[in-house]
Amino acid sequence: MTTAKLLLHCPDTPGILADVTNFITVNKGNIIYLDQYVDHVENIFFMRIEWELKDFFIPKEKIYEYIDTLYAQKYSMSFRLYFSDDKPRMAIFVSKMSHCLFDMLARYTAGEWNVEIPLIISNHPDLKHVADRFSIPFCLFPVTKETKAEQEAKELELLAEHKVNFIVLARYMQVISEKMIEAYPNRIINIHHSFLPAFVGAKPYHAAFERGVKIIGATSHYVTTELDAGPIIEQDVVRITHKDTITDLVNKGKDLEKIVLSRAVQKHIERKILAYKNKTVIFS
Amino acid sequence: MTTAKLLLHCPDTPGILADVTNFITVNKGNIIYLDQYVDHVENIFFMRIEWELKDFFIPKEKIYEYIDTLYAQKYSMSFRLYFSDDKPRMAIFVSKMSHCLFDMLARYTAGEWNVEIPLIISNHPDLKHVADRFSIPFCLFPVTKETKAEQEAKELELLAEHKVNFIVLARYMQVISEKMIEAYPNRIINIHHSFLPAFVGAKPYHAAFERGVKIIGATSHYVTTELDAGPIIEQDVVRITHKDTITDLVNKGKDLEKIVLSRAVQKHIERKILAYKNKTVIFS
Amino acid sequence: MTTAKLLLHCPDTPGILADVTNFITVNKGNIIYLDQYVDHVENIFFMRIEWELKDFFIPKEKIYEYIDTLYAQKYSMSFRLYFSDDKPRMAIFVSKMSHCLFDMLARYTAGEWNVEIPLIISNHPDLKHVADRFSIPFCLFPVTKETKAEQEAKELELLAEHKVNFIVLARYMQVISEKMIEAYPNRIINIHHSFLPAFVGAKPYHAAFERGVKIIGATSHYVTTELDAGPIIEQDVVRITHKDTITDLVNKGKDLEKIVLSRAVQKHIERKILAYKNKTVIFS
Amino acid sequence: MTTAKLLLHCPDTPGILADVTNFITVNKGNIIYLDQYVDHVENIFFMRIEWELKDFFIPKEKIYEYIDTLYAQKYSMSFRLYFSDDKPRMAIFVSKMSHCLFDMLARYTAGEWNVEIPLIISNHPDLKHVADRFSIPFCLFPVTKETKAEQEAKELELLAEHKVNFIVLARYMQVISEKMIEAYPNRIINIHHSFLPAFVGAKPYHAAFERGVKIIGATSHYVTTELDAGPIIEQDVVRITHKDTITDLVNKGKDLEKIVLSRAVQKHIERKILAYKNKTVIFS
Repeated sequence: MTTAKLLLHCPDTPGILADVTNFITVNKGNIIYLDQYVDHVENIFFMRIEWELKDFFIPKEKIYEYIDTLYAQKYSMSFRLYFSDDKPRMAIFVSKMSHCLFDMLARYTAGEWNVEIPLIISNHPDLKHVADRFSIPFCLFPVTKETKAEQEAKELELLAEHKVNFIVLARYMQVISEKMIEAYPNRIINIHHSFLPAFVGAKPYHAAFERGVKIIGATSHYVTTELDAGPIIEQDVVRITHKDTITDLVNKGKDLEKIVLSRAVQKHIERKILAYKNKTVIFS
Repeated sequence: MTTAKLLLHCPDTPGILADVTNFITVNKGNIIYLDQYVDHVENIFFMRIEWELKDFFIPKEKIYEYIDTLYAQKYSMSFRLYFSDDKPRMAIFVSKMSHCLFDMLARYTAGEWNVEIPLIISNHPDLKHVADRFSIPFCLFPVTKETKAEQEAKELELLAEHKVNFIVLARYMQVISEKMIEAYPNRIINIHHSFLPAFVGAKPYHAAFERGVKIIGATSHYVTTELDAGPIIEQDVVRITHKDTITDLVNKGKDLEKIVLSRAVQKHIERKILAYKNKTVIFS
Repeated sequence: MTTAKLLLHCPDTPGILADVTNFITVNKGNIIYLDQYVDHVENIFFMRIEWELKDFFIPKEKIYEYIDTLYAQKYSMSFRLYFSDDKPRMAIFVSKMSHCLFDMLARYTAGEWNVEIPLIISNHPDLKHVADRFSIPFCLFPVTKETKAEQEAKELELLAEHKVNFIVLARYMQVISEKMIEAYPNRIINIHHSFLPAFVGAKPYHAAFERGVKIIGATSHYVTTELDAGPIIEQDVVRITHKDTITDLVNKGKDLEKIVLSRAVQKHIERKILAYKNKTVIFS
Repeated sequence: MTTAKLLLHCPDTPGILADVTNFITVNKGNIIYLDQYVDHVENIFFMRIEWELKDFFIPKEKIYEYIDTLYAQKYSMSFRLYFSDDKPRMAIFVSKMSHCLFDMLARYTAGEWNVEIPLIISNHPDLKHVADRFSIPFCLFPVTKETKAEQEAKELELLAEHKVNFIVLARYMQVISEKMIEAYPNRIINIHHSFLPAFVGAKPYHAAFERGVKIIGATSHYVTTELDAGPIIEQDVVRITHKDTITDLVNKGKDLEKIVLSRAVQKHIERKILAYKNKTVIFS
């Protein structure tokens, strides 16, 4: 059963919720999901609504236009519209560590995610064997300071060619350039191996060990031009003790990283995230 | 600023959300909170909505009648209506352990909870000193098998006299009779010192120790006639190891119990819980 | 650097710790790990000690004999001795769900575990493709009520042939017979998809949904003849809400199951678990 | 039954564990607790050992001297010796928030902690009523920039007079001067309302809200001259969502703060913490 998913935000105004739900109901759309939230500090109304298209009066290809005409200007509304039968296309970027990549490919292969993975991009050859096991094209783009701009340009071309909608950095150990970030705004998901904003940057487990924390974490977030400072999607933590060496932290952290990243990717695939300013609204 | 809080559930019907929000908006009620949920298994619509009464056209004392007339029959709706300036009145039942009682009285004294606590009832004299420290009447009703019915009757009288709306069993070590449960349906909150449905009944920490679990828990729930089987409101857990003795479990458990119970009581005071069949909908 | 790992338990007696550590130190073994624990209820002393063999006076193949002669009788001691260069051999049993299998094979392939996996056994053909991706022999033993005993006998033969030391049931949906349990005492690790002892048996997520719990869990344990009642190795939980359907519980549970099972398997591989009566001592 | 508790650390040397346990056993001390740990990075041996004094050959008042003579120099050992019948004396510093104070006094009154609380010190009069409820002297020292040094001098005098062994800052909103820190090295426990090292300094909940984190935390640590940078004793976290306002964070945080602080204080009272450089070893 095909559904439409509408995500929107606009200044909070009385009547908007009634107006939109009315529009769908009157036109014989069966609402199967609705979640809304008002940010009373910013005075912004956020909503995610999903309805079945079976008996809906308005043809699928006209819905965007209708919402745009009827509501976008009236409410100064930003909105995105998706359909359940459009599979998003996701590229995975990796370097040398396989745990996040394996975790995502296992879910993909088991059919847990409504997504296509047309290619895996890497700056190192180490994980080609993983891509091979799952029969996904592995594209190697070694990067040096000198070749970085050129290689990224080629990557962007390749991504466009494969109609990639969003990118997952699965422990990809390269800073993404502004150009790529602009091409995929709030559509590049990174996993940082610390509980942000603690331990920004390189070697967070070493830093956590030095500081003597009793809990370590992992954070998935959208990539923005400021390093490790984009909108946070998901975080989780695990307890450690004085007995844990840096190697122990790295190993415990891997389990966190893969779960936290996969949860974020899943929310993104399900169209349950709305980024606003530097935060995310995660619909339940 | 006085607000009205409406909690309702009814068979899921297209248009109900639009209908109710429309009603409030059209009558100049400023909606400051809305959360809804559809149980697609039972096909039931649940909603909690809160709005400011300042400019609302319908006088406060007429609102119940209007909702009843306009919607209750139309949608086969059950609903409850509260006003933010009505403080609920809560009685606490205790026996000999003080941790939950102290925790609630500390919150009460700090003004964290919008509640009145007119009295504390106990079957043992041990915690009178706690009630005294907070200047709350302490009513002793020693219970034996022979006197139980009689004592509970007196308690019910006293509760009615003090216009008590709901009861919190803060490690009260007596089974509540059917009569009292019927007088306070889904309005008696208990804390059970295990992760229900594991370790129902007496001495759950001993049972957890015997079984060698690696995590213990606590559960707050509404009391029904079946022991430890009522609708669960809140649960939490804490990790233990083989090194923990039963005494350690009891001590770690106390921290869980008080936090889990207080969270449940707070949700109840805020009118954020809707019990349906043997489960709870907890509005966020 | 090869190390010896000694795990022992015996009635608690003054001097035993000093005696054993002395023995190793005097013979020029460099102790790199020591953890001990006294169960004051059962009055049992447990210890795990690991030392480097480089300068150790006693030849590797004589160590077992020396400990046996010097201490076993003196202290009524049970002990197990392992060497770091002996890789344990592990068989994985699966049915139709791939998440735990993928998780373990990803770790194995990444070299995280000091283990050999000579074969995967299944009662269904569904996961052959997973075994193939990792080039591990997949042995199909379809089981009906009538063929069960016969098939298990063949499995046992195959396990012996491959010198399998321990078995992991990665969501293997068959009750293991007494005969196999006796062949691998405290050496069959199961993952149960509930927070034991809650929801023993089949369909625990359905039962959790029915009961309306607010947290679900997973439990790894050694298999004994009583269903889901063996010594617990590891447990973990995740929060759910009234909005989660049974499908949501299953999906959230999968992440728990694979992490909880892999943690248990890792502890087993590292020789950090000592089962005693129906509990486990997990050395840190 | 009186026990001695010995905490020590020294460069790791073969034989030290055997040597010390031998000493106690030979002199008829019944060891009831032993936990040790080797930091292989710093090459330091840490141990906590507790034994019954009933039949111990060496008189209580001579034990310190014996250990000092026999082992301190031999192993370049630092050690502390406590007896179970010496109750430590703890002062609580507060400002205006009562949750941590109530939590500790509830435990104290219930007899959970082996400690004396001779006085509560505050820079504000607000919480005098709490001290009064528990009949503990409340000493008011209002602090301005001008009077700070003078007031702290008076506080130090008062603390000395009351033979205070350690200080707990229960949301005390004043930076402690170097002089007081030197008087109580690793004996001033603070609770910081964030997951350190994230959000050091003032208003961490506001900062967490601004950053859009999905989890908040609390950290108890020993106070050193660098703000919020001392050895961490205990941390814990709680999940939040985009729906949580700053007020919600503050309220959820309060529960964390009091539990995290009380756990740290309890470990300190039980003599289970050894601070080394800028970290803590927490014996189990």
